[in-house]
Amino acid sequence: MTRRELISNIQRKRSFLCVGLDPDIKKIPAHLLDGPNPLFEFCKAIVDATSPYCVAYKPNLAFFESLGADGVRQLEMTVRHIRQNCPDQFIIADAKRGDIGNTSALYARAAFEQMGVDAITVAPYMGEDSVKPFLGYEGKWVILLALTSNPGSKNFQMLTVDGSDERLFERVIRTSSEWAGPEEMMYVVGATQGRMFEDIRRVAPRSFLLVPGVGAQGGSLEEVCRYGMLPDGECGLLVNSSRGIIYASTGTDFAEAAGEAARTLAAQMDALL
Amino acid sequence: MTRRELISNIQRKRSFLCVGLDPDIKKIPAHLLDGPNPLFEFCKAIVDATSPYCVAYKPNLAFFESLGADGVRQLEMTVRHIRQNCPDQFIIADAKRGDIGNTSALYARAAFEQMGVDAITVAPYMGEDSVKPFLGYEGKWVILLALTSNPGSKNFQMLTVDGSDERLFERVIRTSSEWAGPEEMMYVVGATQGRMFEDIRRVAPRSFLLVPGVGAQGGSLEEVCRYGMLPDGECGLLVNSSRGIIYASTGTDFAEAAGEAARTLAAQMDALL
Repeated sequence: MTRRELISNIQRKRSFLCVGLDPDIKKIPAHLLDGPNPLFEFCKAIVDATSPYCVAYKPNLAFFESLGADGVRQLEMTVRHIRQNCPDQFIIADAKRGDIGNTSALYARAAFEQMGVDAITVAPYMGEDSVKPFLGYEGKWVILLALTSNPGSKNFQMLTVDGSDERLFERVIRTSSEWAGPEEMMYVVGATQGRMFEDIRRVAPRSFLLVPGVGAQGGSLEEVCRYGMLPDGECGLLVNSSRGIIYASTGTDFAEAAGEAARTLAAQMDALL
Repeated sequence: MTRRELISNIQRKRSFLCVGLDPDIKKIPAHLLDGPNPLFEFCKAIVDATSPYCVAYKPNLAFFESLGADGVRQLEMTVRHIRQNCPDQFIIADAKRGDIGNTSALYARAAFEQMGVDAITVAPYMGEDSVKPFLGYEGKWVILLALTSNPGSKNFQMLTVDGSDERLFERVIRTSSEWAGPEEMMYVVGATQGRMFEDIRRVAPRSFLLVPGVGAQGGSLEEVCRYGMLPDGECGLLVNSSRGIIYASTGTDFAEAAGEAARTLAAQMDALL
């Protein structure tokens, strides 16, 4: 999906919501556990209930991999279901991969050719040759970790580097923007970082930002938009909610509750656009 | 596997070789492609030929994931084969994972409970709560990326931090050594970094180091040992070779050639121990 198509979907649906698919086998409703594909059945119901209100889905691979090959098979079923039933959704493999060049090339193959997603999250620690193999696939995206939503982001990402005032996350954005432009690279910036969006926009003035941390992690949607949204209808934000939507209810009404939670968030987004 | 058991295996086998299992479907011998499990058959033959000469195997998950669920199934078969036939081998899932706390916990479950490996490589960028969920499994290990073997290691890992002379990779080691000791945490340090092992030993005086980059990537085994080996028979090194062993021949004799390459490396290690 191109940047223009993504922006057009956001404008048409009046939403920049990304629904995070984190199906923990220990948390999904008990009645799904009887069938052979509980993770898929859970995700399928969530997708069917939420797709009018979002523009992207972000399956987190950890939750599928925790069941081994059988979980990965259900991930493939989930991606296929989204592709076939909601072809306008942007699908992000939240994988946080990154390895030496020849190995990153295999992860790229896994994401873009085997799974067929639109984007993959990548960790920057190993530098240029670990990121570049993910680039150059037409219509595909790298979403690089910059400033994450968790407490541990303070350990390394916030350190100043090189004897300057620049912090590591800013250096990551500045350096990586020499590898790819805002047509094929986005950045992860946690909603819990509020005012930091001003600093982020100084180094990433046109990039889309994938923003986790609204909801269960406590980030504010208003603050993210005030400091992070691009003008002229470009939006430049994909705000993710996982637990707040998919576990809105743990009963048999989980899908309706998820749809309702997504609808509520999308209405807030409509007002902010 | 405990640290003591690992050291005892190294002393008994007179080898600290780790064989990297990177089975690229586009590179493995053509005669294996007819069967239903080419990656597994390739790895199985490599393991059977090399196990007398090494103390560890390091399957890199990218190569299996590039075939989707079917590849992950063959990874599980490979791990099971090693466990059943060479119970004294230390198995490392080279996965370079790391995510927010609740998600890292799922990756830990995938590696230690589902796959049953001894260790997993973890990326440090997201900090403490992304690493800690991998700790506390008895006899299991985190192998944290510190200074990697690839050119991109210069982009961020070598930056000085915090207005001091300390470089990011040193800070990663120093900070993370507050989370876990040398009984359950190792570090990845690329063999291509030669003299850096002196600096590494200043901040990680007792830790085991997993050292990729000997062979195809050009690192020197002698230099790694001169600056990185621990005294008193503790060794403190697992030196990995992947391509130099598993692709020593691309013909039907690939397993014999791999065995021979591993035997040669192990003989060099014997002399250096």
